[in-house]
Amino acid sequence: MVTRTGPLGFEARVRASFAQQAFMAALGAELASVAPGEVTIELPFRADLTQQDGFLHAGVVAAVADSACGYAAFSLMPADARVLSVEFKVNLMKPAAGTRFRAVGRVVRAGRTLTVCSGEVSAERDGRETVVALMQATMMSVRDAAEPIG
Amino acid sequence: MVTRTGPLGFEARVRASFAQQAFMAALGAELASVAPGEVTIELPFRADLTQQDGFLHAGVVAAVADSACGYAAFSLMPADARVLSVEFKVNLMKPAAGTRFRAVGRVVRAGRTLTVCSGEVSAERDGRETVVALMQATMMSVRDAAEPIG
Amino acid sequence: MVTRTGPLGFEARVRASFAQQAFMAALGAELASVAPGEVTIELPFRADLTQQDGFLHAGVVAAVADSACGYAAFSLMPADARVLSVEFKVNLMKPAAGTRFRAVGRVVRAGRTLTVCSGEVSAERDGRETVVALMQATMMSVRDAAEPIG
Amino acid sequence: MVTRTGPLGFEARVRASFAQQAFMAALGAELASVAPGEVTIELPFRADLTQQDGFLHAGVVAAVADSACGYAAFSLMPADARVLSVEFKVNLMKPAAGTRFRAVGRVVRAGRTLTVCSGEVSAERDGRETVVALMQATMMSVRDAAEPIG
Repeated sequence: MVTRTGPLGFEARVRASFAQQAFMAALGAELASVAPGEVTIELPFRADLTQQDGFLHAGVVAAVADSACGYAAFSLMPADARVLSVEFKVNLMKPAAGTRFRAVGRVVRAGRTLTVCSGEVSAERDGRETVVALMQATMMSVRDAAEPIG
Repeated sequence: MVTRTGPLGFEARVRASFAQQAFMAALGAELASVAPGEVTIELPFRADLTQQDGFLHAGVVAAVADSACGYAAFSLMPADARVLSVEFKVNLMKPAAGTRFRAVGRVVRAGRTLTVCSGEVSAERDGRETVVALMQATMMSVRDAAEPIG
Repeated sequence: MVTRTGPLGFEARVRASFAQQAFMAALGAELASVAPGEVTIELPFRADLTQQDGFLHAGVVAAVADSACGYAAFSLMPADARVLSVEFKVNLMKPAAGTRFRAVGRVVRAGRTLTVCSGEVSAERDGRETVVALMQATMMSVRDAAEPIG
Repeated sequence: MVTRTGPLGFEARVRASFAQQAFMAALGAELASVAPGEVTIELPFRADLTQQDGFLHAGVVAAVADSACGYAAFSLMPADARVLSVEFKVNLMKPAAGTRFRAVGRVVRAGRTLTVCSGEVSAERDGRETVVALMQATMMSVRDAAEPIG
């Protein structure tokens, strides 16, 4: 991984935007760390976030990975840009079983318009951490309000 | 699309499993229709499901599309099978803005172990419906509890 | 599917660009039809295009689907735009076994910068056609030579 | 990355199978290295592998990444298994411009049936290597000839 420098005020902008994601609050997700091009979100287990077998629902796994990737991309964008998810793909590699989950999003390639990110979600159970999901995502920097996506 | 016949009792099994997805209830999502190989989930807008711009969070869009695809796959599986999401990819084509959302999951190819599905999420606003997201997903039929995924 | 009108001269531009794809010629692929937002490419089987089991290599399947999607997107773009593949995802649903293959690319959503396409590859064998692969792709309209991708 | 041990004879099996991929030979691709869970394929530039702008065609990029990922997965499979690509997703991050290309496939999670891999394609130009594409792929271990995929 490259050591990066974020634009001035990047952490405050990420934290302010995350605070506006009502859905992250609804999930109980917290912004654990913000570095240039790398963001970590943590999520304690809650029974109302599960699928039919009692594991974290794939949509919840995707949500925290998407936000981690989106904010990793956003941390490197100019101060007047907004970020939008263009698309993502996620492999659910193991059942998302645990008491606490951690999603790490990392920028792989930051372009002027598009940023490619890699995300990983791990589950903590009995003091051990296991990677349960892998994401590859495309984020977009938007400056023009006229056409938000694309 | 091919007209399909589901295995005996498929609709009851889908409805019973959906009722156990605590996260769908937490979102306020409802199972609107169940046909062999095609399932529709509806979701009224709620302010706590949004991202920083007030649109439905991509994770919520993915969650309802994933459940619609998963149950479309499940509807064609034998009575003793469970369904798990292997992976999915979703394009967020337009901002998910609306008062009500509809996710349709359709089976494209049902194999013995893996089923490929196509999902579409549309948003209803001012009486008009717009497709906002497109999913392509791989679901797995699991009969052996030993290794749930893969 | 929406009936679309392509910009003036779209078919000639698609055909001219396809003729410059040296790799399509190397594969023996032909541009079978060009409509606004929908392009079909055909490929006769050749033994040197196979993987270890004698089926068409997944890379060949992806190549014709990607070109079909790319030109479907390109057919709706302004005359001065170039098209580049941002990303694609393909499910190989059945072995690509046959004497002739057909890739159809269709535009699902055409934006100013990004276009989302759906692609399907089918195989013809003993007079029957079977869908063997499904693609979901993001294409980009580029007008500025400075930074070709992203 | 975990240090892994491959099953007895894994390298010979990978090399024998690669030698049967007629398409890799047609591209001029070579198997550069085989380790348990990690395989590298190299490809010299050739003008007949390009798209309309003279860069390597996305299908070629996908082909070498898919084979690298597939053989990375295969290297950890039991001796009597075959490997098939279930699906892959690739981001074309930069134009694939260079004199030589290298695709590295790595196993992220090896399951009994499904293996998740990560692939990276880099281009060498003027002595510098740049990552141009990122893949996330699902491979399948098949032992039963009855239904090759799924």
